[in-house]
Amino acid sequence: MKLAIYGYGNLGRGVECAIHKNSDATLVGIFTRRDPKTVRPLYESTPVYSANELLAHKESIDVLILCGGSATDLPEMTPALAEHFHVVDSFDTHATISKHFDRCDAAAKAGGRIALISCGWDPGLFSIARAYASAVLPGGAAYTFWGRGISQGHSDAIRRIAGVKDARQYTVPREEALAAVRSGQTPALTTREKHLRECYVVVEDGADTAYIEKTIKEMPNYFADYDTTVTFLTEEELRREHGGMPHGGSVIYNGRTGKESEHGHTVEFRLSLDSNPEFTGSVLVAYARAVDRMAKRGVCGCKTVLDIAPGDLLMESAEELRAHLI
Amino acid sequence: MKLAIYGYGNLGRGVECAIHKNSDATLVGIFTRRDPKTVRPLYESTPVYSANELLAHKESIDVLILCGGSATDLPEMTPALAEHFHVVDSFDTHATISKHFDRCDAAAKAGGRIALISCGWDPGLFSIARAYASAVLPGGAAYTFWGRGISQGHSDAIRRIAGVKDARQYTVPREEALAAVRSGQTPALTTREKHLRECYVVVEDGADTAYIEKTIKEMPNYFADYDTTVTFLTEEELRREHGGMPHGGSVIYNGRTGKESEHGHTVEFRLSLDSNPEFTGSVLVAYARAVDRMAKRGVCGCKTVLDIAPGDLLMESAEELRAHLI
Repeated sequence: MKLAIYGYGNLGRGVECAIHKNSDATLVGIFTRRDPKTVRPLYESTPVYSANELLAHKESIDVLILCGGSATDLPEMTPALAEHFHVVDSFDTHATISKHFDRCDAAAKAGGRIALISCGWDPGLFSIARAYASAVLPGGAAYTFWGRGISQGHSDAIRRIAGVKDARQYTVPREEALAAVRSGQTPALTTREKHLRECYVVVEDGADTAYIEKTIKEMPNYFADYDTTVTFLTEEELRREHGGMPHGGSVIYNGRTGKESEHGHTVEFRLSLDSNPEFTGSVLVAYARAVDRMAKRGVCGCKTVLDIAPGDLLMESAEELRAHLI
Repeated sequence: MKLAIYGYGNLGRGVECAIHKNSDATLVGIFTRRDPKTVRPLYESTPVYSANELLAHKESIDVLILCGGSATDLPEMTPALAEHFHVVDSFDTHATISKHFDRCDAAAKAGGRIALISCGWDPGLFSIARAYASAVLPGGAAYTFWGRGISQGHSDAIRRIAGVKDARQYTVPREEALAAVRSGQTPALTTREKHLRECYVVVEDGADTAYIEKTIKEMPNYFADYDTTVTFLTEEELRREHGGMPHGGSVIYNGRTGKESEHGHTVEFRLSLDSNPEFTGSVLVAYARAVDRMAKRGVCGCKTVLDIAPGDLLMESAEELRAHLI
């Protein structure tokens, strides 16, 4: 399959890496809205084109992987491109997935294309874990814990405070909540009881650290509802100790069976990721394969990960999978 | 959807329970090869019929759930019934799934029916976990650990030894192996290094316990390749302490990404089950729903869990799932 990348930040680099790990995939190129001369791909062999040239490459691209952000890029980008290409995006604003779906569905159907949206690990693999568990054990309780990992949105919120030079924020699940849910309990957990927030902050010379710490801890939506720790450190320490992009988490589902609901069952799906964008990029490439196959079977319209059979994600044939994987 | 159960042992009872937890499912009845008068269903309201009457109920059954054993029942039962009914089975002899598939596929296609085979948790949900992880991180290492849980086959093997009145065998993953794999290592593990076997044995009066212990520990295929413990106890103790049918386990997959494969990722899918047959029965009912939907879309032939999109397993509509689950 011939894949192309649209947008080249951390996620785009993750997709570029992932394509090199999949022997049935070739990378047609990166399409960027910046000046292509300023973009340095990870692999020298990767062509870089201007986004303006995209339509001229229409015939040579099987699936276009969209690596824009969910806040402003994807709500416009995915419907606009789904009319011309089979596309995969990682739209992750849970509250507006239905609206995004409807717009992408109309565009994809108009062009006879497939638009697979909200792909990655949450939404994505975590959605799938919630789906399997609640299908098998209806009426149970689902818990999603995130971390320990870097939240880009929370890190950015800290960086916007006056006097802050750089920052990283870790979302950390509370061990006592994890342990209770893993043991089969179904507690009602508040936001504060599920996660902690750890902030590592570099300040400008002479900045008021007491003010910065207070501003972080009282920030509505981002930090006010959590127990938050703030640690000030040097730029060098931040780069050395907190330079990576790890993430992960767990979906844990507790349900009951038996005539008197006397038997409890715990289903857990857990990810521990050294690089959030590289793992997410790898998920997008696996789903691009499924989109390519479904397109060849004549499918069109908007799809989510819940519409894709797991066998379509794998390089191996159905016969090989029955013989070796099932 | 109108479901029926064919074969009524532990798994059949698990399916009967599960049907009562799914508000969109009704149970047409249990079909048994025994004298129906001797079968007592869990729910008084459940009709019990002779297996000989099955074809007379053809029009009133949407999906028939086959609850026979993999050794001798299902290899004949599934192809024979797939010509007349949409069926779901839990065929679990990994080595002969391909052969079973081919026979069921021919029968199902001849009758315009769907036969979903090898459904449950392994094969089943564990196969799916292996599929998602290896699709996303090709070239990684997959580990499957079973237990702590009762193995029916190993318990039966002990019961066949002269002087043994009753027995239960637990398969137990070794904590050190689990910990190593969970931490991202990819060790080559021998059979002995992955699992322990714990045996609880009730003997006849005057039986030679030293002989029985030696016979268990040296039994080829079942115990000789494992570290095995044997504990003798009374019938009353066995019933009280080991009367349940718990099981579970973990699929753990370690893969790498990055230009220099510098980033590691661990994916784990874990089950902890109070009742193996009730959980397996619950999986079969969820897949019966998918079979019913796919049949209404005109699909036919043999399928495995890898061919089923997760969204088809759930009672809720695709719109509801996009709004609340993804």
